[in-house]
Amino acid sequence: MGSRFLEQLPTPAALIDRTRLLKNLRAMQQRAAQEGVALRPHVKTHKSPDLARLQQEVGAVGITVATVDEAEAFVAAGFTEVRLAYPTVGADRYERLLPLMERARLSFCLDTPEAIREASAFFAERGRQARVLLEVDTGFGRTGVRWDDARHLVACARLIQESPGLRLIGLLTHAGQAYHGPQSGESPIDALRRVAAEERDRLLAAAVVLHQAGLATPGQLELSVGSTPTAHYFTNRTEQGFRITEMRPGNYVFHDAMQVALGSCTLDDCALTVLARVVSRKPDGRGGWWVFLDAGKKALSTDQGYGTQGYGLPLYRPASRTPLPHARIARLSEEHGWMHVRGGTTLQIGDRVQIVPNHACLVAPLLRRFYVVEGDEVVAEWAVAEASSVARSVASTC
Amino acid sequence: MGSRFLEQLPTPAALIDRTRLLKNLRAMQQRAAQEGVALRPHVKTHKSPDLARLQQEVGAVGITVATVDEAEAFVAAGFTEVRLAYPTVGADRYERLLPLMERARLSFCLDTPEAIREASAFFAERGRQARVLLEVDTGFGRTGVRWDDARHLVACARLIQESPGLRLIGLLTHAGQAYHGPQSGESPIDALRRVAAEERDRLLAAAVVLHQAGLATPGQLELSVGSTPTAHYFTNRTEQGFRITEMRPGNYVFHDAMQVALGSCTLDDCALTVLARVVSRKPDGRGGWWVFLDAGKKALSTDQGYGTQGYGLPLYRPASRTPLPHARIARLSEEHGWMHVRGGTTLQIGDRVQIVPNHACLVAPLLRRFYVVEGDEVVAEWAVAEASSVARSVASTC
Repeated sequence: MGSRFLEQLPTPAALIDRTRLLKNLRAMQQRAAQEGVALRPHVKTHKSPDLARLQQEVGAVGITVATVDEAEAFVAAGFTEVRLAYPTVGADRYERLLPLMERARLSFCLDTPEAIREASAFFAERGRQARVLLEVDTGFGRTGVRWDDARHLVACARLIQESPGLRLIGLLTHAGQAYHGPQSGESPIDALRRVAAEERDRLLAAAVVLHQAGLATPGQLELSVGSTPTAHYFTNRTEQGFRITEMRPGNYVFHDAMQVALGSCTLDDCALTVLARVVSRKPDGRGGWWVFLDAGKKALSTDQGYGTQGYGLPLYRPASRTPLPHARIARLSEEHGWMHVRGGTTLQIGDRVQIVPNHACLVAPLLRRFYVVEGDEVVAEWAVAEASSVARSVASTC
Repeated sequence: MGSRFLEQLPTPAALIDRTRLLKNLRAMQQRAAQEGVALRPHVKTHKSPDLARLQQEVGAVGITVATVDEAEAFVAAGFTEVRLAYPTVGADRYERLLPLMERARLSFCLDTPEAIREASAFFAERGRQARVLLEVDTGFGRTGVRWDDARHLVACARLIQESPGLRLIGLLTHAGQAYHGPQSGESPIDALRRVAAEERDRLLAAAVVLHQAGLATPGQLELSVGSTPTAHYFTNRTEQGFRITEMRPGNYVFHDAMQVALGSCTLDDCALTVLARVVSRKPDGRGGWWVFLDAGKKALSTDQGYGTQGYGLPLYRPASRTPLPHARIARLSEEHGWMHVRGGTTLQIGDRVQIVPNHACLVAPLLRRFYVVEGDEVVAEWAVAEASSVARSVASTC
């Protein structure tokens, strides 16, 4: 590839600002070091082996994935330390994990007696012992055994330990309530501090419960927390000998408009933008303009979150992440962004606009390619990894 | 591939019910025949050459695409009659269309003087004349020259006709306002009838304006309308010799929860479901349950629309499209569907649930593979087409 510039890229395109990316990688690695935890970044955000390699160069101990597809793709790309942070249910999934376990140190989550029994039976029959973490719900209300449900925590941990096909290596949680924003009277930063403390303290409390039941000893259990907003405000501490051992943020590599709204980062920390082009425009009849961009639901996704405005934040000057004044992406069609501009606009047909997406983690599966840029120059092109099973399957039908 | 059953599929997976698909294809083809228009289905909904071939077997005259990526993928797959229903801006796009024009009868849309001039200059320089349609806005308010803006309609049509690199072959519109639902006091069906009439009458009115300006004669201009909800209620008519010549619905192959809410189809007409599995569950503390499915934002998308409930409609009995009672997909995480069930639930860990998505057109780019099923048997597997430029580019970085 010869040198290539932003003006030559097709649109819509996902751009990674290399300088901001590296700054984000180093800042999070430093956070982890400071709090004495390993950083095992969640690669669901980017699904890019190239980016994950950079994360490892900076100091990450391994990677976290959300699906067996991702596990396959990253093991195929040479990653050997892989945690599947998802309640892993179904013999078909265990079947696909088996060959990966030959090539990588792999672990996955369980959170129900039913799945624990099924997984143990599967691996025991094959003379294997799978490394599992018990997922704990520290207040998000999603998957995982509730941190304050001592009876179920002990029952599940005991069941895993008594299962011949499984080995309990840790507890894992995701404090997704960090995305809910502040409670009444609370500042955004205070909300993140509160949730980061909840996530830590409740996971430590769960470890202590297992300790008291004779099922865990400090130093032997991995205690894994993770989300980008809580990672920024995480401080470690000791509870009856237990400490948090790792964190698994994913989004921090890019950040996005949701993270800005939550106070998890500044707009200047956002490394990912979607490059779009003005394809049409018309007056709105009230002195403003509708400017139509070629990035819609199939590039930006329709995701919104606490504090986001419209469907992404259009930039006036990408270098400084200065927002486009008076502009709002008010609606999306599948391939159109409806950007409303109050008052006049200088945007012409064919002009390029960079947009900070609301939720960066949804851009990778839609656009499937990243252009890494330094200023106006494209310095690398990174493809989203395909699961080997997908590649196989598609090949077989061609 | 040996015979394969639903129980053996990985989850999440996109399923196409073959019987319902064929019924939808035939019904729309019959609608088109009845109203004396060609059917040129929009393949953005499925991006599958296999499915588009079926559409052609049933009688479609060609295909409609939304992007140059789709045009490349479908021309590479052998399609020779391709309409790009999108205001096509940028020399890079024209450059990619050039080789496709050697292999297919290709046309695209324009809607601004700036793009008309740029396109004409590009094709004229290369001794080519591109076939273009002027996009008309018949009330949606998106791209296209407004139907009631006679001055701009005439100016753009004249500019195209005077452009050496372009040939005006028709007018094209998309009455996206059909997705807004009924106005106060109106029934859903009346709303669709109203919008279908608007779309038709306003496009015919635009043709008459060009006729009066000496820029068009009946029989010479293609008049293309299209959206699934309006196609179901479209009736043709003659206005000063002009008639609608084609329609371009896309979604009708699958339908979805949005179309059901709009009254465009019944739940029984929905051919696409997302197959998910129960990975965890817990009581909600108020007598109900949270059931967690492995289909989230990266399978169903977060899209919602007029009248949709939650993020997709879970089925109790897929064969009859009977909804799961008391259940609602209340929230999505990236890889989790949060299904709330009032009262008790019989769903167990590992159970499979089929979900009718809110918006079927967003499933293809996310899941990228369809399993075609007859009852519980998987009878075919269709991959989403990759743009050849994507394939090339990815190959070059491997």
